[in-house]
Amino acid sequence: MHPANVQTAARYAEQYQRALLNDVLPFWENHSLDRTHGGYFTCLDRSGQVYDTDKFIWLQNRQVWLFSMLYNRLEQRESWLKVAEHGAEFLSEHGRDPEGNWYFSLNQTGQPLIQPYNIFSDCFAAMAFSQYALASQDETAKVVALQAYGNVLRRKSNPKGQYDKSFPGTRSLKSLAVPMILANLTLEMDWLLEGDQLTNILKSTVAEVMTDFLDPDLGLMLEHVTPDGKKLDCYEGRLLNPGHGIEAMWFMMDIGDRLGDKALIQQAVDVTLNILEYAWDPEYGGIYYFMDRLGAPPQQLEWDQKLWWVHVETLVALLMGYRLTGNPKCWEWFETIHDYSWSRFADPEKGEWFGYLNRRGEVLLNLKGGKWKGCFHVPRALYLCWQQLELLK
Amino acid sequence: MHPANVQTAARYAEQYQRALLNDVLPFWENHSLDRTHGGYFTCLDRSGQVYDTDKFIWLQNRQVWLFSMLYNRLEQRESWLKVAEHGAEFLSEHGRDPEGNWYFSLNQTGQPLIQPYNIFSDCFAAMAFSQYALASQDETAKVVALQAYGNVLRRKSNPKGQYDKSFPGTRSLKSLAVPMILANLTLEMDWLLEGDQLTNILKSTVAEVMTDFLDPDLGLMLEHVTPDGKKLDCYEGRLLNPGHGIEAMWFMMDIGDRLGDKALIQQAVDVTLNILEYAWDPEYGGIYYFMDRLGAPPQQLEWDQKLWWVHVETLVALLMGYRLTGNPKCWEWFETIHDYSWSRFADPEKGEWFGYLNRRGEVLLNLKGGKWKGCFHVPRALYLCWQQLELLK
Repeated sequence: MHPANVQTAARYAEQYQRALLNDVLPFWENHSLDRTHGGYFTCLDRSGQVYDTDKFIWLQNRQVWLFSMLYNRLEQRESWLKVAEHGAEFLSEHGRDPEGNWYFSLNQTGQPLIQPYNIFSDCFAAMAFSQYALASQDETAKVVALQAYGNVLRRKSNPKGQYDKSFPGTRSLKSLAVPMILANLTLEMDWLLEGDQLTNILKSTVAEVMTDFLDPDLGLMLEHVTPDGKKLDCYEGRLLNPGHGIEAMWFMMDIGDRLGDKALIQQAVDVTLNILEYAWDPEYGGIYYFMDRLGAPPQQLEWDQKLWWVHVETLVALLMGYRLTGNPKCWEWFETIHDYSWSRFADPEKGEWFGYLNRRGEVLLNLKGGKWKGCFHVPRALYLCWQQLELLK
Repeated sequence: MHPANVQTAARYAEQYQRALLNDVLPFWENHSLDRTHGGYFTCLDRSGQVYDTDKFIWLQNRQVWLFSMLYNRLEQRESWLKVAEHGAEFLSEHGRDPEGNWYFSLNQTGQPLIQPYNIFSDCFAAMAFSQYALASQDETAKVVALQAYGNVLRRKSNPKGQYDKSFPGTRSLKSLAVPMILANLTLEMDWLLEGDQLTNILKSTVAEVMTDFLDPDLGLMLEHVTPDGKKLDCYEGRLLNPGHGIEAMWFMMDIGDRLGDKALIQQAVDVTLNILEYAWDPEYGGIYYFMDRLGAPPQQLEWDQKLWWVHVETLVALLMGYRLTGNPKCWEWFETIHDYSWSRFADPEKGEWFGYLNRRGEVLLNLKGGKWKGCFHVPRALYLCWQQLELLK
């Protein structure tokens, strides 16, 4: 329980910086580029060998975003822009249907495999092409970004369209993921938007997340509530996704920081710490993937597994919370999650991080990337943690 | 490694009979009937308390089937017919949309929650109402059964209809589940069908399963192949579901027995034993849930878990294989799986069986029923094993 001093912060900062620049980015630069057909391989085994060649739109766009973002914010390295361009060109050519909606997945050569049923494909496309347009000064990329952003706004009240299997009216639900991604996306698109669109969307998102989705009794974030913010006693209504709740809270802290809203920052820090107390596995360590707010058995069989993104998003939240409030509990928890994560997920021998551990913290899948894990959460978190730590030095 | 003698078979027969009649059936009779709104609760915790009231059509129909089947084949107990009637009445009233397609789930009072996107809802309805019509001699039930059977035949080439998210043409796949269920269903509907429809469907199913879905190099059943039976190197094309493959093999043995096809029986036994050698966890025991035929990381995070239905279907396959061929390896494996299952899944203290164990065989979800586990695999397997053992006495 020792709040950070300057030396400690500097030591951690160097660790995160070094892992980002000397381990994780080179892993993707060396192994993920498809030199034959364009785009990226994301299904990479422990040492970076490709075990599947399908191309998942979320992950393709997230890698374009990541390299463009680092080019824009960290250093204008030509090689990073080239990696982003490699994906952006493949995606511009193959990623959308004739109406401009983003497919969910393509095969190696870019033929569509799964239809545009998923609004998040468009979200990540808007984020990717916005950052890439800023990096490349490519006017076409700007058009692609704005088109994808338009898709999201048009589809957000009915994200799955014809693929929605719920019967209308019996049980209406809304998901935390939608306001979350909309806030994140709007921040990313800021430089392309007009007037006070940004502030308006941020304020309404904050209100929705912290009122409708926050369970005031438990102090936890719910994944699904009724459209007017009521709790429901059904699988979806009982579901807790601690990592997602914590990720939402660092978005709130970030917005609070921009808007100068100290009460919001304080509340987001409190909820983060509360989720951690609730979702930390006291027996084996690590944060559970899914829980049920009434303690019923969750539907998700993977509920007790320990996932990389849950833990790295938590590191970001705790450092941001510590920097903004100085709450020593943030620092204490940061060191706990840091030790857990670096000793189990990180793989300095072969590079990048494992993604999936079982409850005991043993490697469950011997991979560095797959259908859902690409070049995104690990490097983003390493970058954001490093930046927070620099501000503590 | 001692093939069964009469005394051993009798001892096991009594164990399976007793568990069925004194433990598992009473568990569902005591805990699952919704006396207020009709139908069954299936989300039951370890001791049978209801933790969720939604009604999943697969499981509702499977319970109607199970109690009707036992009434028809084992003993005409009035109380069993009453349990079946309790579900059949609720389902007749609430289970279908105006076109007669079966919803996927309803809330407690019977209002639809999830649309009829799933052809297996219609399959299980046809099976349930066919057995129930036979038990109750209810003409309306016969009509319901034939209508559901018609839905299956109409939709089998495009089972998901508008909800199918795959892009047409890029990668066509067919699933083992479809011919499997069609064979099973046709056997169940036999008494309602005309002429040689049964024999024709059985023969074409056998040909499809044992030619298109059997990987001749590995001797394993594949879950997905191209429409003309070719292997594909993608997640779906590499997927192995050992429990499903073994369940398919006892269907094949059963059909082989009806058709007097000894070569088919022999082949199904060989494949069963081969799947077991491949999918048995040498470290902790039990049969894996999912594997990848090329050893790549599976997409399913629950791949290493040990599921009740996988193990009880394997018990059926091994006893049927032993009875039909006398192969001592079937008996040896039967005793291994029997010991594994009864010491971990069975819960004589509170009744019924746990459904989900982690890789080490520890209880993962403290439940006896949920969204996918109801009154079906355990009592069906106990009944079928008992009957096979009686024939060995």
